[in-house]
Amino acid sequence: MQNSSRTAAILIIGNEILSGRTQDTHVQFLAKELSDLGILLKKVVIIPDDESEIITCINELRRKHTYVFTTGGIGPTHDDITSQSLAKAFEVDLCRNETAVRMIQRRYKESQDNLTEEVFKMADIPKSAKLITNDISGAPGFYIDNVFVLAGLPDVNRSMFQDVKNNILKPCSKFIENSISVSAGEGLISKPLSGLQDRFPELQIGSYPFAKDNTWSTKIVIRGKSSKEIKEASDMFIEFLTKQAIEFIEEDQ
Amino acid sequence: MQNSSRTAAILIIGNEILSGRTQDTHVQFLAKELSDLGILLKKVVIIPDDESEIITCINELRRKHTYVFTTGGIGPTHDDITSQSLAKAFEVDLCRNETAVRMIQRRYKESQDNLTEEVFKMADIPKSAKLITNDISGAPGFYIDNVFVLAGLPDVNRSMFQDVKNNILKPCSKFIENSISVSAGEGLISKPLSGLQDRFPELQIGSYPFAKDNTWSTKIVIRGKSSKEIKEASDMFIEFLTKQAIEFIEEDQ
Repeated sequence: MQNSSRTAAILIIGNEILSGRTQDTHVQFLAKELSDLGILLKKVVIIPDDESEIITCINELRRKHTYVFTTGGIGPTHDDITSQSLAKAFEVDLCRNETAVRMIQRRYKESQDNLTEEVFKMADIPKSAKLITNDISGAPGFYIDNVFVLAGLPDVNRSMFQDVKNNILKPCSKFIENSISVSAGEGLISKPLSGLQDRFPELQIGSYPFAKDNTWSTKIVIRGKSSKEIKEASDMFIEFLTKQAIEFIEEDQ
Repeated sequence: MQNSSRTAAILIIGNEILSGRTQDTHVQFLAKELSDLGILLKKVVIIPDDESEIITCINELRRKHTYVFTTGGIGPTHDDITSQSLAKAFEVDLCRNETAVRMIQRRYKESQDNLTEEVFKMADIPKSAKLITNDISGAPGFYIDNVFVLAGLPDVNRSMFQDVKNNILKPCSKFIENSISVSAGEGLISKPLSGLQDRFPELQIGSYPFAKDNTWSTKIVIRGKSSKEIKEASDMFIEFLTKQAIEFIEEDQ
């Protein structure tokens, strides 16, 4: 398996995912972005708006991974408890951040929305955290040490991640993959695939069956950072398929 | 927050979700089904095809929750390591299950697919586990103690869950919810919502902003098992909205 220097975890905070009301879209978005940045996503955890659970998860994940990204719970209502929980996890105070106050005031002035005192709860940020800009609705995210705190609303989440990607994280060689679709069930190809994985331990070689015209086909995905190794492994697998007269389509190189 | 007697966790096993290649659909499907069965979903964890990670997560989750549902990793290829990992987590042997062998033989005979020796890896089941039927592709899932091991392929996963739902789990009073959409940003309603949550600690009261016609609106979701409490809380919130002349639509009662 891939031996990457930088790993990440995502912590999705929100009752609405766990009740089934909302289909999560953050995991796939962040997974693809992290892959392009060459960061290996190793874990995703989804939990309710529960302070002790947030603190426990944050403290476990931030010690095990290079980066942690949280989504959700930074709005102005009673169920938005991510910022206060982060402050407790890092054992720092939660303080009114004057730059965040100005960001919120500016956006509310532009949109002529009603600005109540409650809105400024979104400017309460753990001490020593740095702000992440939000081009959609003004109120910023923040990061403290290796934990990036992003909004749950998809547009706002994406806007904040752009700031993180462009201004805070450094890209390194990205993950690439090749997929080969095979007109055969997994049983016919499992042995050579296993041999291939042993031969290329740095690559992730995955096998995903799918039904096509009432018979089973399989998609093989070969993923890693070395295009040379991916090509070698693909060629070896295709040689096997050709010998066995198994039809295939090579894709996504 | 809801004080439910039965809780659940989901463990999604698969590199393809963490690489961003595949959009997960299991969480929302299982979340809705569990909600209808009156089971409170408290945690979802997504991890790679990694034996030690699977063992650690299973042993943590099965001790904390009434039920654990895993998805993925029970096919016949090298990256399918869920069954062997479960056997290790429970410290039991992995054995060839003769009933599972016959289920696989029968389905392959019907479909006239090529049956190789490798396919029978799917009949290796932890000792003392019981089988879960699979109407799509034959090879069964299984459950051991409070852990239900389901396939990753969506059709197969849904088929296995139907067996679990109809024949193994007992339903109890289901979760219900009411949602109220409000033509106001969260700042205008956060104070009464907070009061409402304090008054009804057994209900989950969530607030979800969304943009509509360039201004902010908010959806309030009130969820629980007592329709009487949900109605009382909804009526109190609507009374506040009426007093403040805030437009609203009540939905989903």
